[in-house]
Amino acid sequence: MLTEPQRDQLDVVLVSPRNPLNIGAAARAMANFGFARMAVVAPYEAHWREAKSAIGASDLLQNAKRVERLAEAVADCTLVIGTGTLEHRRPEQPVIPLPELAPFVGAELARGSRVALVFGPEKRGLTREDLALCHMLVEIPTDPRQPSMNLGQAVAVCLYELAARGKTDAHPSNKNKDAARMGHPIPAEDHAAPASTRDPACARDLDLLAAVVAETMQAANYSPAAMQKANRHDLDLLLRRLKLERRDARRILGLFRRILWRLKHQIGLKD
Amino acid sequence: MLTEPQRDQLDVVLVSPRNPLNIGAAARAMANFGFARMAVVAPYEAHWREAKSAIGASDLLQNAKRVERLAEAVADCTLVIGTGTLEHRRPEQPVIPLPELAPFVGAELARGSRVALVFGPEKRGLTREDLALCHMLVEIPTDPRQPSMNLGQAVAVCLYELAARGKTDAHPSNKNKDAARMGHPIPAEDHAAPASTRDPACARDLDLLAAVVAETMQAANYSPAAMQKANRHDLDLLLRRLKLERRDARRILGLFRRILWRLKHQIGLKD
Repeated sequence: MLTEPQRDQLDVVLVSPRNPLNIGAAARAMANFGFARMAVVAPYEAHWREAKSAIGASDLLQNAKRVERLAEAVADCTLVIGTGTLEHRRPEQPVIPLPELAPFVGAELARGSRVALVFGPEKRGLTREDLALCHMLVEIPTDPRQPSMNLGQAVAVCLYELAARGKTDAHPSNKNKDAARMGHPIPAEDHAAPASTRDPACARDLDLLAAVVAETMQAANYSPAAMQKANRHDLDLLLRRLKLERRDARRILGLFRRILWRLKHQIGLKD
Repeated sequence: MLTEPQRDQLDVVLVSPRNPLNIGAAARAMANFGFARMAVVAPYEAHWREAKSAIGASDLLQNAKRVERLAEAVADCTLVIGTGTLEHRRPEQPVIPLPELAPFVGAELARGSRVALVFGPEKRGLTREDLALCHMLVEIPTDPRQPSMNLGQAVAVCLYELAARGKTDAHPSNKNKDAARMGHPIPAEDHAAPASTRDPACARDLDLLAAVVAETMQAANYSPAAMQKANRHDLDLLLRRLKLERRDARRILGLFRRILWRLKHQIGLKD
């Protein structure tokens, strides 16, 4: 079981939810499984905080963070997990089946890092742009004939899995292979094991780095303007694959700032 | 994972649900996890089959069985599992945490028997009378500060657990001790193990036996009329603790019928 402080390190993030009843149902499921921190990104309806379905969770809903962009909601997180069915797109990140997710989350929480579990809007799910901010995707093992879950039910199932099995279910199996492939430390079997000494970069560090690298690419005429959006997308994914330490992210940022200054300065001299 | 025929041996039973949206949400969760058989006992609203929340599950809802009493809904089942939070009553049956339930259900389904998973009405949950028809209770590990789940979310969480872990998760642990205590065969580790040769009595067999035994108790002046309801309750529980084979249930039924005939015949002679 996750400790209460560990549960408070997990953010449930709802991106552009349409139906306030679903937001309330998500809040109720969070209260049922002992989670308290919700963030809502650009909700469709104004009065979502009054959702009647948030039984026993009205405080949670009142205290939920409201932001305009997913990047803001996950800025402090070192592990961002996207949810949804993946039948219509080829995933660009590692995909973990929900029954194998808990050890990854548990290990991250155990070292004091923040984790975000991100749910897309009811009909269309997370966009490709949203998914580029995720380190991994989790797949709920639904029936291929009817894969699409109700938002409140999907939140309940994911939080049940994490609450029931967080930190307690690390069997040596395929997930360790996946973890190694992803650069994530393999979750420890032993609860008393010392926390890893990693200090991973959070989403804010990566966004800042991505912005400066993207500006550098433009300043260096690395690619035509038409490619800038696609390049930024690939860059977002790349930076999350690297699993950078915070100090390395800062080192690379310093390098690119220097390069960017040089590029602009040269251009200035030339003009 | 459970096979499709095995999933079709499981009935999801909703007792006196009030809100058709919750019935539809339960149906949607069933479709998400590949279950198809729903029974609804004495629903509060007439037009529940048209619930809009049953996305991708309207056929399932049209085909749902509607009955007046829980005993009818579970008549063919050899394992009846009650759900709900148990904080306000002392349970009279073994209580299994949801994360440990799958091996019990998987073993029963593997031998071809039918299983019912029973959910109570939204506010008050299953009555003591309903619970007396259950062999075991399952407890969803919710936060003690907010234990009460939405019906559709509770169904989703239970079916996720069974679908994701049915037959695949039988670790030697406390649950084997519980299983032994309950007279349930310990679920096999090996998927290829031959199915048990047990032929357990189903709920209909037990109801018939209980009715004849209760009539016999009255005919024998076993207890005052005021105690009849309490005696029947204890009898229902006792018969489920015994885990009778079908042939033994029939043998005992024959014995009690004989006794009952004798008692009535003697009374007739005396009068």
